[in-house]
Parts: sequence; C-alpha cells; structure tokens
Amino acid sequence: MTRNAKLWGGRFDKCTDELVEGFSASISFDRRLYRQDIAGSIAHCRMLAKQGIIGEDESTQIVVGLEAILAEIEDGTFDFKVEYEDIHMNVEAALREKVGAVAGKLHTARSRNDQVALDMRMYVKEAIDRIVVQLRTFQTTLLRLAHTHVDVVMPGYTHLQRAQPVLLAHHFLAYFEMLQRDIARFRDCYRRTDVMPLGSGALAGVTLPIDRSYLARELGFAEISRNSMDAVADRDFVVEFVAASSIAMMHLSRLAEEVVLWSSAEFNFVELDDAYATGSSIMPQKKNPDVAELVRGKTGRVYGHLISLLTTLKSLPLAYNKDMQEDKEGLFDTIDTLLVSLEVFCCMLATMKVNCRLMGKVAAENYVLATDVADYLARKGMPFREAHAVVGRLVRHGIDLGKPLSDLALSDYRAQSPLFDKDIFDITIHSSVAARDVPGGTAPDQVRAALAEATRIVSEEP
Amino acid sequence: MTRNAKLWGGRFDKCTDELVEGFSASISFDRRLYRQDIAGSIAHCRMLAKQGIIGEDESTQIVVGLEAILAEIEDGTFDFKVEYEDIHMNVEAALREKVGAVAGKLHTARSRNDQVALDMRMYVKEAIDRIVVQLRTFQTTLLRLAHTHVDVVMPGYTHLQRAQPVLLAHHFLAYFEMLQRDIARFRDCYRRTDVMPLGSGALAGVTLPIDRSYLARELGFAEISRNSMDAVADRDFVVEFVAASSIAMMHLSRLAEEVVLWSSAEFNFVELDDAYATGSSIMPQKKNPDVAELVRGKTGRVYGHLISLLTTLKSLPLAYNKDMQEDKEGLFDTIDTLLVSLEVFCCMLATMKVNCRLMGKVAAENYVLATDVADYLARKGMPFREAHAVVGRLVRHGIDLGKPLSDLALSDYRAQSPLFDKDIFDITIHSSVAARDVPGGTAPDQVRAALAEATRIVSEEP
Amino acid sequence: MTRNAKLWGGRFDKCTDELVEGFSASISFDRRLYRQDIAGSIAHCRMLAKQGIIGEDESTQIVVGLEAILAEIEDGTFDFKVEYEDIHMNVEAALREKVGAVAGKLHTARSRNDQVALDMRMYVKEAIDRIVVQLRTFQTTLLRLAHTHVDVVMPGYTHLQRAQPVLLAHHFLAYFEMLQRDIARFRDCYRRTDVMPLGSGALAGVTLPIDRSYLARELGFAEISRNSMDAVADRDFVVEFVAASSIAMMHLSRLAEEVVLWSSAEFNFVELDDAYATGSSIMPQKKNPDVAELVRGKTGRVYGHLISLLTTLKSLPLAYNKDMQEDKEGLFDTIDTLLVSLEVFCCMLATMKVNCRLMGKVAAENYVLATDVADYLARKGMPFREAHAVVGRLVRHGIDLGKPLSDLALSDYRAQSPLFDKDIFDITIHSSVAARDVPGGTAPDQVRAALAEATRIVSEEP
Amino acid sequence: MTRNAKLWGGRFDKCTDELVEGFSASISFDRRLYRQDIAGSIAHCRMLAKQGIIGEDESTQIVVGLEAILAEIEDGTFDFKVEYEDIHMNVEAALREKVGAVAGKLHTARSRNDQVALDMRMYVKEAIDRIVVQLRTFQTTLLRLAHTHVDVVMPGYTHLQRAQPVLLAHHFLAYFEMLQRDIARFRDCYRRTDVMPLGSGALAGVTLPIDRSYLARELGFAEISRNSMDAVADRDFVVEFVAASSIAMMHLSRLAEEVVLWSSAEFNFVELDDAYATGSSIMPQKKNPDVAELVRGKTGRVYGHLISLLTTLKSLPLAYNKDMQEDKEGLFDTIDTLLVSLEVFCCMLATMKVNCRLMGKVAAENYVLATDVADYLARKGMPFREAHAVVGRLVRHGIDLGKPLSDLALSDYRAQSPLFDKDIFDITIHSSVAARDVPGGTAPDQVRAALAEATRIVSEEP
Repeated sequence: MTRNAKLWGGRFDKCTDELVEGFSASISFDRRLYRQDIAGSIAHCRMLAKQGIIGEDESTQIVVGLEAILAEIEDGTFDFKVEYEDIHMNVEAALREKVGAVAGKLHTARSRNDQVALDMRMYVKEAIDRIVVQLRTFQTTLLRLAHTHVDVVMPGYTHLQRAQPVLLAHHFLAYFEMLQRDIARFRDCYRRTDVMPLGSGALAGVTLPIDRSYLARELGFAEISRNSMDAVADRDFVVEFVAASSIAMMHLSRLAEEVVLWSSAEFNFVELDDAYATGSSIMPQKKNPDVAELVRGKTGRVYGHLISLLTTLKSLPLAYNKDMQEDKEGLFDTIDTLLVSLEVFCCMLATMKVNCRLMGKVAAENYVLATDVADYLARKGMPFREAHAVVGRLVRHGIDLGKPLSDLALSDYRAQSPLFDKDIFDITIHSSVAARDVPGGTAPDQVRAALAEATRIVSEEP
Repeated sequence: MTRNAKLWGGRFDKCTDELVEGFSASISFDRRLYRQDIAGSIAHCRMLAKQGIIGEDESTQIVVGLEAILAEIEDGTFDFKVEYEDIHMNVEAALREKVGAVAGKLHTARSRNDQVALDMRMYVKEAIDRIVVQLRTFQTTLLRLAHTHVDVVMPGYTHLQRAQPVLLAHHFLAYFEMLQRDIARFRDCYRRTDVMPLGSGALAGVTLPIDRSYLARELGFAEISRNSMDAVADRDFVVEFVAASSIAMMHLSRLAEEVVLWSSAEFNFVELDDAYATGSSIMPQKKNPDVAELVRGKTGRVYGHLISLLTTLKSLPLAYNKDMQEDKEGLFDTIDTLLVSLEVFCCMLATMKVNCRLMGKVAAENYVLATDVADYLARKGMPFREAHAVVGRLVRHGIDLGKPLSDLALSDYRAQSPLFDKDIFDITIHSSVAARDVPGGTAPDQVRAALAEATRIVSEEP
Repeated sequence: MTRNAKLWGGRFDKCTDELVEGFSASISFDRRLYRQDIAGSIAHCRMLAKQGIIGEDESTQIVVGLEAILAEIEDGTFDFKVEYEDIHMNVEAALREKVGAVAGKLHTARSRNDQVALDMRMYVKEAIDRIVVQLRTFQTTLLRLAHTHVDVVMPGYTHLQRAQPVLLAHHFLAYFEMLQRDIARFRDCYRRTDVMPLGSGALAGVTLPIDRSYLARELGFAEISRNSMDAVADRDFVVEFVAASSIAMMHLSRLAEEVVLWSSAEFNFVELDDAYATGSSIMPQKKNPDVAELVRGKTGRVYGHLISLLTTLKSLPLAYNKDMQEDKEGLFDTIDTLLVSLEVFCCMLATMKVNCRLMGKVAAENYVLATDVADYLARKGMPFREAHAVVGRLVRHGIDLGKPLSDLALSDYRAQSPLFDKDIFDITIHSSVAARDVPGGTAPDQVRAALAEATRIVSEEP
Repeated sequence: MTRNAKLWGGRFDKCTDELVEGFSASISFDRRLYRQDIAGSIAHCRMLAKQGIIGEDESTQIVVGLEAILAEIEDGTFDFKVEYEDIHMNVEAALREKVGAVAGKLHTARSRNDQVALDMRMYVKEAIDRIVVQLRTFQTTLLRLAHTHVDVVMPGYTHLQRAQPVLLAHHFLAYFEMLQRDIARFRDCYRRTDVMPLGSGALAGVTLPIDRSYLARELGFAEISRNSMDAVADRDFVVEFVAASSIAMMHLSRLAEEVVLWSSAEFNFVELDDAYATGSSIMPQKKNPDVAELVRGKTGRVYGHLISLLTTLKSLPLAYNKDMQEDKEGLFDTIDTLLVSLEVFCCMLATMKVNCRLMGKVAAENYVLATDVADYLARKGMPFREAHAVVGRLVRHGIDLGKPLSDLALSDYRAQSPLFDKDIFDITIHSSVAARDVPGGTAPDQVRAALAEATRIVSEEP
C-alpha cells in the first residue's frame, strides 16, 4: 500500500480503503452544487486578488480555469471521480490539471466546511425562488378555477358529511390561502438562508485579511455570518426549508384527497382529462387519478426527509461533523418532489372538468339547510341552543318520513315551534350561501371580493 | 336507552355510548384553553350586543356568568365533566346553570369549529411570548458565560477531534446565534398565528351581521382570516410552532451533548453544581449530568409530536375533521417541554464551573496549530495545498518521534521546506486565536465585538 | 442549603435544585409500574433469602411491607412523592417507614438500572397479552360481519375507482388477515421481551451469589439476559412494541377511512348507530363518524411515539443513560391508544348497519365487469393484452352512448371482435364474483372456506 | 393528440401528458426488481402451460424470450423506457418485440397489482438473507475483538461517567446481543414476507384455473396469501423490514458514537487505521473517524424511510392505490444503507488498534470501585442503603483531599464505619471485575463462557 495521495493525505501512512472511499464520497449527489461551488470559488478568488493575498494574474488564471470547468460540466464532458470525494475536490483537482500549481492557491483562507455551507445556502436560495414561482402558478390556476366557477354551489363538508352549501370558488380560495402561507414561510426561510458563511474557515475563522462583505455582495447575500463555529455547524436553513416543504406537501395532500374523492363514481364531481389519468393493466374500464394519489403518497417522503435531517443533527457537538454530509440527498429530493408535484398537480387541475350541475343538485340534499333554519329561529329571538334542538327534532321527523325539509308542511314546522311562518320556505341553497355575508364568508359578494384581492396579491406581489 | 341529551342531540334517537363519550371527549386536555375560551366568549358576546344581535342586558348577564366561571376554574372549584365533551361545552353548560336560558344565545353566530381555532391561536401566541422570554434569558446566560470566560482558550473540535484553538466565549456565542434564529422563527410563526378566525362558523361563515374586526381588536389580533373554510381547517400554525420548537430542541441537544462530554472524566472541562446533578442508587461515587441527558432525550419527544401532527393532517379533506382534535396534546407537551428544558438547562449552565486551566492546556496539544503552520507557509507564497502537504508530513514526523510541533527542531522544519524560519516558533495558541481576525472569527477583538453586539440585541430588542 | 438527603446523596454537598427535582423525577408517569415493581421486589427479596444473602425473617418483614404498600397503592391511599423521584425509590422509602432499616437490604445486589428494565419488560408482556385479546375480539367482530353479509356483493375498489365486484365478506376478511399479522408481530415481540434482566446491577453484574434463574421462574420469564451491559441499555423491546403498534394503527386507519367514506352521503354504504356517532354544535342535521376519524387521527400519535423513541435511543453510548427515562410516556400512551381504539372501533363496527341493497346495485355500475369481458375473450384464445384493448374500446363506446355494457347490442360487441357471442350477456356481478374461484379469491365458496378457516384460527389459537 | 397507445389505453381518447408520464413512471427505480420480475413471469408462464391455459409451445416461446431479456439486462444492453412506466411493462413490451403477439398471453390471469407484490416480496426475502449474512460477519468481528482483548479491563460507563470496571470483551459482547436480536427480527419479518401473492389479480382473484401452490413451490415461497384484497394492499412486510433496519441502525449508531468518543484525544482508547479514517482539506494534522460519523448520520435516513412508509400507507382504503408505488425507493435505500454500513463499519472495527494499557489505567480512576466498597460493607451485614451513604461520604472525603480511595488511610475508612478492616485494600479493578460472577456479569469466567456460547451460535446457526 502506498502513501495516501489525497489532497489531505500528508499525515497518513496508508491509502484510504476503497470501500471507505465509496462510502464517504459525496460526489454522486453533491455534484448538483457545481454551479454554486464554482461561482463561490470565482468570487473567493477575485476577493483574494483584490486583497493582495494572491496575484491578479494568478486570479485570472484560476478564474479562466474555473469557467472552463463550468462549461465542461454543463455540456456533460466533465469526468467526476469518486476518489476526489466531493464537488469541491473534483473541481480543484480539475483546476490543477488545467492551470497547474497555482490551483493550490484557491483553497487559501477557505475550508471545505465553509465552502459547502456557502454552496448549500446558494442552492436553497435558488430553490426557494423556483418554488415560489411554482406556488404562484398554482395559485393562479386556483384563481382561474374560482373565476370560472364563481356561481357554482357545492355541498361544503365537515367530517366528510354534507354540512352547509358553499361556493366552489370559496373552496378553491381556501387552498389559495394555504399556499399564500407557504410562500410566506419560504420567504422567511430565505431571509435566514441569505447569510454568507465564507471566511469561517474550518471552524475558527481564517488568518488572512479577507473581505467578507465583498464576497457577500458579489454572491448576492444580504448579510455575513456572525460566528464562525455556528456558520459551519448550522443547517437550520435546510431543516426549516424541509419543514416548510412538508407543510406545503400536506396542503397538496389535502387537495389530492379531494380530487381522488371527487373523481370517484360516488362523488362524480369532476372528470380528469385523459392526459392526466392512467389506466389499468388488467381492468379495461379503469381511469385512475394516479397523479393525485402519487402527490398524496409523496407527502410521506418529504415528512421522512424532515425527520431524517432532524435526527441526524440531534446531539452533534460543535462544530462540523461528518454526519452533516447527510443533509443533501433529502434536501435535493424534497426540492424535486415539491417542484414536480406542484407542476403536475397544477396541470391536472387546469384540465379537469367540473360536474357543476351535480354539485348544485346534491348541495341541496341531506338537510344541509338545517343551520339556516336554526338561524331563522334565532333571528326571531329564540336562543340558538334551543333553535338547534328544535331543528334537530325537525330533521329527525323528516328522516322518519323520508322527506327533505323543503317537503315538510308548515304544520310540521309549527308543531316544533310557533315561530315558524311560511317565509321558512324561502330558504334555499342560494339564500343560504348569500346569507353568509361576512368577510371570509361564502356569500357571492364576499367571494368575489376575496377573488379580486387574491388576484391583486398574485399580480402585485412578486 | 333514552333520547340523546347532548347539546347537539336533537336528531339522535339514542344516547352516545359511554366508551365513545370517553374516547371522543377532549376535556381532559383542552381544559387548558379555558382562559382563551372565556376571553373569546366575552368578546363575542359584547360584539353580539354591540351589533344588536342580542340585548345589552343579555350580554351583561352572560359576561358576568362567564367571569364567575373563570374565577371558579382559576380557584380550582369548577367541576369539569366528560359528558360535556370539551372546554366549550363545559363552559356553556355551566353558564346555563348560572344564568339560565339566555346562555343559549352565546353560541349565536359561532361554531365550535371557529371557536377552537380561536382558542388555539390565542394559546399559541401566548406560548410564543413565554418562549421568547425564556430564549432571551438563555441568551443572557450565554452572554454572561462568554463575558466571564472571555480570555479562556479551548480546543475547537470538528469530528470531535481537536482542530484549532478557539475562545470559549466564541463557542458560547455560537449558541447565541442559534437561539437568535429560534427567536426569529417563533416570531414569524407568531405573525401567521395572529389571525382571528371567529365568524367562520362551522365552515361557511355566519349569517348574522357580526363585526369581525371589532373581535380582532378586542382580542388583540392583527388580522382577520380571509376564508372561512381555510380558517376552520387550518392548523399550519401548530405545525409551524412545533417545527420551530423541534429546531430549538435540536440546538439544546447539541449543547446538552457537549455538557455531557465536558462533564466526563475524560474531558473534565466542567463540573456541574451539586444542585444540578444527580447520583446513583448503587454507585456511591457517581455524579451524573441528568439534566443535560434528559434535555437531549426530550428532543425525540418534540420530534415525535411534529411527525404526529403532520401525519394526522395529511390527506384531510376540507373543512374540519375530528382527526384535528389530535392537535392539542402534542402542542401542549411541546410547549411544556421546551419551556422547562430552557429553564432548567439555563440554571445548570449558570452554576457550572469551568476548568479553564485544563481547557487552555489541552488546546495546545494534538498538533492543533498545524493549520497555522500551513498558513505561515502560504503567507510566504507557497500555494496552500502544497503547504498543507508539507505540514502533514511534519505532523507525521512529530507523531513518529512522539513530539509536539513546538518541540521539533528548526532543522526538522527546514527538512520539509526552506521557507521555515525561526519565527515559526512564535506560533502559539494565543497567536493562533488572535490571527483569526476576520468578522465572525475567534480573535479576541472580534469576539469582544460580537459579545457587545449580542448584548445590544438582547437589551434593545424585546 | 443543607446536605443532600437523597438515598444516593452521600457524596453531594448540596441539595438538588427543586426545578431539577421536578424535571428529572419520573414518578408522575412511572407509578404505572407499581405492580410490576413490587412483584419484582418480592421475588428479589425471596431469592436473597433463599441464597442466604439476607435472613428469612428479614425477607418476611420486607415482603409483608411490600404487600401492604401494594394494597395502599391499589386502594388509592398511597402518597407518591416527587422528591423520591421514581416508583422504585417511592416504594423503598415507604418500606423504610413501615419496616425500618431492614428496608435498606432490599436494594442489595440490585440497581435501579436492572430494576426498571425488569418492570418495563413485565409491563410490556402484560400489555401484549391484553392487546392480543383485543385483536382477537376485533377479528371475531369482523368474522361475525363477514358471516352476516356472506352473500352481499359490493364494488371492489382500486385507486378509489370501482374495479371489480367482490363480496363484502371478502373485504372484511382482508382486515382479518392484517390483524392476524399484527398478532404474530406482537407475539414475536413478546418472545424478545420475555428475558429477565435482574442481576445485571448498574451495568456490570452483581457481586453477590444470586440465583437469576430462580428469579426468572418466579416472575414468569422464559430466559435470563446474557450480557449485563446490554440488559440495562436495551430498549429494543419497547421500540419493537411501538413499531408493531404503529402497523396495527395503520391497519385501523385504513378501515377508519373506509368507514368515513362509507358513511358519507355519496357512498351511503353504512349507517352508524346513534350511540357511535356524534352531532354538531351548530348544524342540527349532522351525524358525524367521530370515532372513525379519531382512530384515524390517533395513528399519527403512535407514529410520533415511534420516531420519538428511535430518536432518543440514537447514538447513546453504553450502558444506561438518563435519556432512556423518555421510554415510558410514549409507550404507555401507545398501549392506551391502541387498546381503546380497538375496543371502541370494534363496537362501532358491530352496531353499524350495512346498506346491502345499494352496495349490490352500484357493484354493477361503471363497467366493473370489463375485466370479465376481457377474460371471456382470453378464454376464447385471444391474447389477454389484445382482449384488454378490445374491451377498452367497447367501454369507450359505451361511455360515448351513455350506456352500460349490458345495454350494448351484440352487434356493438361484434363490431369490436367476432369472438363475442350472445353468452356474453351471461356475465353478471354474480358470475363475475363466482368466477374468481382460486384460493384467496372472492368466489363465494372460497370466501366461505376462508371464513371457516379464520373461525378455526380464532377459536383454536389462543 | 393521438389516441393513447399505452398497453392499458383502450378506453382513453388522449395520450398521457409527458409530464405525467415522467411523474408516474417508476422504471427509474423499480428496474431493480428485474430479476424477481422475470423469475416470477417464467414461473407464471410455466404454470399457465401446466394448467392448459396457454399452450406448451407458447410457454416455451415466452420463457425463451424472458431469458433473453434477463441476459440483456444483466449485460447492460437492455433499453429501459419511461413510456412503458415500470419494470413489468418494460419487460412485456420487450417480450412482444422478441416473440410477437404471444407475449400478450403472459399477462393472462395476472395483474400488475399482484405482480409487483410478488416482486417486492422476493426482493425483501433476498435482502434479508444478505443482511443476515452481514450481521453474522459483524458478530464474528465482535467475537474476534472480544477474544483478542479478553483480559482487557476498561471503565464501564453510565451517563458517560465512569461507573464500574468491566472487561472490554464484555462491552463488545453487549453489541453481539443487539445484533442477535436484529437477526431474530429480520427472520420473523422473513416469515411474514414468505407468502406468495400471485393469483390475487387486480384485487378479487383471477378467473382462470391457475395453480397457486405450484407457483409458490417454483418460486420458493412457504405459503400462499389467503385473501386477494389484502394481498395487493399489504405492504406490512416492507414497513416491518424498515422498522427492523431502523433498530439495527440504532445499534450501529450507538457503537459509532463510542468509536467517535474513543478516537477523541480525550478518551484516546482506540486508533483507527489510516485506511479507515480521513483527513481535512485545511487542517494538516486531522484524522477523522468519518466512517463512524457517517454511519451515525445515516441512522436518520433509515428512520426517515420508516416514517415515510408509515405515513404513505396511513388511511389508504382497499385495495391497491397508486400511493403505494412510494414503497420502493425508501426500501431500496434502506437495504443499501444497512448493508454498506455493516460492511464498512465491520472493517473499521477489525483494523482499529485498542489502547489497552490506557483503558486499564483509567479503569481504576474516579472512584469506580466505590460500589465494591459498599458491597464490602453489605457483606458484613450493613444494609446496602446505609453502606451506600457511608461510601458516599468517603468519596466526598477523598475528593476534598484530592486522593483516590486506595490512598486513604484505614483510619479514614474507620472514621466512616468500624466495619472496615485492612482487607478493604484488597479491592482492585481485577477483584471488582472478578466479583461480578453471575451469569451475564463481567467476571472473566462468565465472559469466557458467554464468548464460547456466542461462538457456538454463530457457527451453528445459519
């Protein structure tokens, strides 16, 4: 066995075992960070020259080399090697081949610990930008659906029991609100990610007179980190990102469940476009809402990444520990999963046909106007609790006769309370919906106002 | 079996099975919300009177009744009953006993769905306030420790291997930064919690002309919810709160791990105060860091609550579903766990004795100055990579001789590189620490500046 | 501050801080182990006497004292004290009050570390016994339901789309199988729990000539532990128990989802008994499947406990660490949750009314016989893939005409394939079900055989 | 847009959207199942011929085609296509190219639902076999280490405080026991996986007279599934497998933590071989226990997969749902992670050098013999509790004087209790270890017996 030829191998007598090499190498997944890594290195290099730590000509050589490497990676001709462990060392080794010994100056005043923290922060910032765009697109689809179906009444559910009639547009706008919170959460996470760690070195800060603020400006960061040990040990931004993603996936899973329900023969509220459904290998009649099911299923995957990250970080002493290498795959998969789920779900919604007539029809069934009847009594002065009991008995009476409330006689009503008069028959799903005329309520005017406000938000807020 | 006597029992033929009653009742844990519930009811009642929905005298009767109930709960004389299911119904039933039928008017234009959403939001807001105070206290303790030990040098670790000397104050300030982010996260969560849901009714909004903004002002909310279905179905704020708590516990678990390590005979960096350690039932000599171990262990518990909530909410169709009752116990336990962990850990830290001399002594061992030696060569123009290799061989040489770098002869140095001169012996842990003189670095001036800034933050930001 | 009066306080100068006392005490929850703890102590004490380590009279005094304590706890007159930390010390302190200094001999050759391991194992074993009984009861209910509805046809679903007709009994028997695996898992866990740890001392074994096999026999254990360090550090049996419980809850959550769906107005397959449903505080007509929703929701809670335990145990060095005290609350809550969920769910199922006629009716809708038509062609020699395509086109044709397959003319069939003959109209849901006549299939004969075999299992296997 | 050309596309008007195709395709990961899939198809095909459902010559053509496809996949020339969605359809489409229309007969009496269940079960069974081999190898390494260091005394720890001296071999054997339970758990999981699902069809069983028992025999299964709906909906075996893997990883994480601790300068108990450690890009002296850290970190990943699976399966109604496609990636990654972690960790242990002398030296420090001193008094008749207190005071006295117990004068001892005599000085770490002479204890004879028994288990049990 020969001496260790690794870039860090000076004090080692032996080579790394090949199995260990494969086990501890991260190049198979951290190559994703190549763009961030090279951009960081270029800025670092320019800063070193600006500060006189390396020569301008050295800087130029290095930058030219790095740009060539970037081009090679982008056009797929770069050869990533497991023995160089990670993206940082792969780039540096390639640089050495291109520009010779001067490549060795790039790692001046820098450690892989602050370098990877930089790359990860840049990557998460870009991911958030892309996710926010996709969330906005999703919201726009919801608004379009709400707009198209602004007069459609459907049964609103609690406990999956028909509860009160609502506008379908109101239902869609509920999801608009969830995604609005998701955007806010991702933005808050962005602010905490937008902190430049370079200069922290391995853990204690570097010994050369670097200019950290210059680096932050060059790389588009709002702030520099305030404590070098924290800067290399911190992965809060990854956990927070995956937590925000978990909540967003939870929202999608709720809508996915509804699409699955609504596509069933029993509900029959929507029909998915053929292009967004799939068939069965054995049952020729099947048309399955696979997209919605998969999004629902993938929720578990993102939750898993969250728990994985939290578990990995638990109890790690300061500062960097190798366990933290496990921060990447779960993050990357979370980004991919959330982005593709948003995109495909959005297209599925946009092309789905709503069975508006059926929705309106069933919105009137199952005594869903009972609350309105109780409110009728309450408006005539009966305490609500008493009114609730009166109407409960009326419903019981209707069930026993097999009749809806609208088919009961006025005498049936009066048998329960003399406050009933024939205007009781004015209550319909439309009057019911219209009556919920408070901000946030499902009355058409309120929903139209909410739709207008939501449209404003999407168009005015980036 | 007699007819169902529940407040909602009108349409039911039979009583609820007793087992079901116990199973679905939440009063054993949601009684915690009594203060929020009653405050919400008082505000709701006053609003109803202001809007002319109920009479002023009715309102007065109800408010007086509610205040009496509050007093009874606070002095422990209130009798909570499982058959009334939850805090809302317990309060309402007691109100009926106190003020008679007029009690039935309190539930006008309100459902338990928006009521419990209100209570939970108020509770979380208060919890965040208490947690931020506790986090600030913890930060203050860290600052005090940093201040007291501002000149103490210790070995900084990566991979639990001694890496470079750092100031102990710098180490403590790393935790200050973590907690600073925790505070920011809780505050962001607060903003999203600070939304008043009352008026959403069961799911569709209410039919009476209530004044939601008045309610928001009375109850100290910044905004009102914009969609009634979302308002009763949303528990994002609970998940986000528990996610923020999970990250905070993760931070504590890291410091806890360090306290356990530092208390070991092997490290011997600190001695816990007798009042914050415990003994063994069998081994008379033992002094165990139980507090740190328990905080570390309780991290799992909070992670568990996070996954529990996310799992429960997954795939729930709109709007309210009974599954959501499971949002409470995990939340309450998270709040309790985080608050007590912060408090007891803080006291333990404040009373812990640091073995400063030993820390300084070992900070110089194990070739921790190797990076400084490499930087020395880099400053003399050698590419850092080459310098790293040279010093790696030097370390290897030292290990073989069983000597620290400081005991090697200049000739040993020069054998590796002619760039070495006798000023190489000027490198000490103190020069090493002082050399990391960049913002965020461990140089004493930088640490003092960071300490001053942190002190300003704690004293100026609420 | 006075000297530490704890039973372990000899080497301490100071009292434990009160906050720490509350924080680290476990008596509020581990008092649940009192029966196991006392039984273990009595056996330990008798063994010490048998071995001549303590006197027979001493043993008698201690045993009498312990039995008196047990009686006090059971009748609720025992006063648990936080300052005695845990159940072990509470019992020992009470014993000292009852029998004086001889009480101090009970802790001979024993540590709290092996004692708590013993208590936990005994507790888990008993819990498994109770859970298996409850699972068997649940299976019996399923068998009764299957038996009662043995001829009822329903639509079988995949992707929540109607797929093929199945017998409702076959559907119930699917859950029988799941529970059968649950029982097997719990029994496997039992075997690994059934290992007696006493004699392991704090971690290294004890120094007195105790008889471990005697203890195992007395306490009903199958084996003694083989390594003292493992014995006090091992909580695998708790994790495994909670993992088995998580899978069992997952099964219940699936059935719960179905009950919620089936109770909806859209499905209308079942009506829950009034005693197992609940109403709404605002909507008088509502009848909600709260029990099913709660069981579904509580699944998250058990998953949470699983992740909590796994997280807590991760990375703990040998042997006992205080973190392990966190093993109890999640375990206890898992046991309670699973037991009550099984019990209440079972009663709900037993009293639920099935709308058999509607099930049969809709089982024939939505082209659910398409697979049978394809199988018809396959039996006539057409490769199945081709048959699938032919029937797919036939279904498309039917959808376009708005007709079910049974209303298409033979010419419509023949237009797709000349293999069709008029016996194609012999295909009905009954012929379809009957045709699935392979072991495990839904043909009535197969289902009856499966029901008989399941009945045998439940009655013959304990 | 043209008609849908999918194998299931007959009833569809439009092609699948390309985005959906990529989203719902599983071929990128389920190609791993190719060997199981083809073996299953061959057995299925032979069974169809044996039963006269297809011709012998047809069967032969299909089998020859399948074997050719297998060969192509194994030598890397097979072209997997996303538009064929999954491994089943990719193989079938390739078969059609090879043997023409007769390929369509392969899917007779089979659905992808039972086919994928079969593949997964075969895959898990093989994975368990490989894992058990690896666990046995790991155990063998532990036994070798125990054997080599059978006389080495080290400090045993609780709460990471030195507690009592133990044999290093005893410590290693504790891990042997953990792995022994792991093996048992995997084997129990194997039994529940060893159930042949083919014949369940899509969900209801198949309509042709297939021979399920023949299939089971051909494919090496112990049983056939008893309920077709359960058979296609069941993924318990995957969850159970990942749960068993989580516990195994938890065990590894504990040993990993110890290796990290022991490699620290503070403990200095072991030195890792250069081939199993890595260096730093910036600190030339560093030698990091990366392998141990990574194994510890990867524990979180496996926990994540567990929660992901459980979450995905929660609340899925019968029978198959597309969400279940999410069962694969987490399973595959769990298998890979566990296998490689076991392998690399094992090599690291086998090459690690133990600093036996230092271990023995520190085993005597920090009053670790205090329990033995208390036992000394107990043996002379003092109740253990009292003895504990006496020795506690003695330790306190020693700490105050800065002396170990062995340096205190007999008069110091007698000042605490007249029972002390000069034989008190016979207590050493060796006498202490030897005194723990109970089964499972750390006495050399007991450890040697345990080692012999463990060696027997490894060699005799497969």
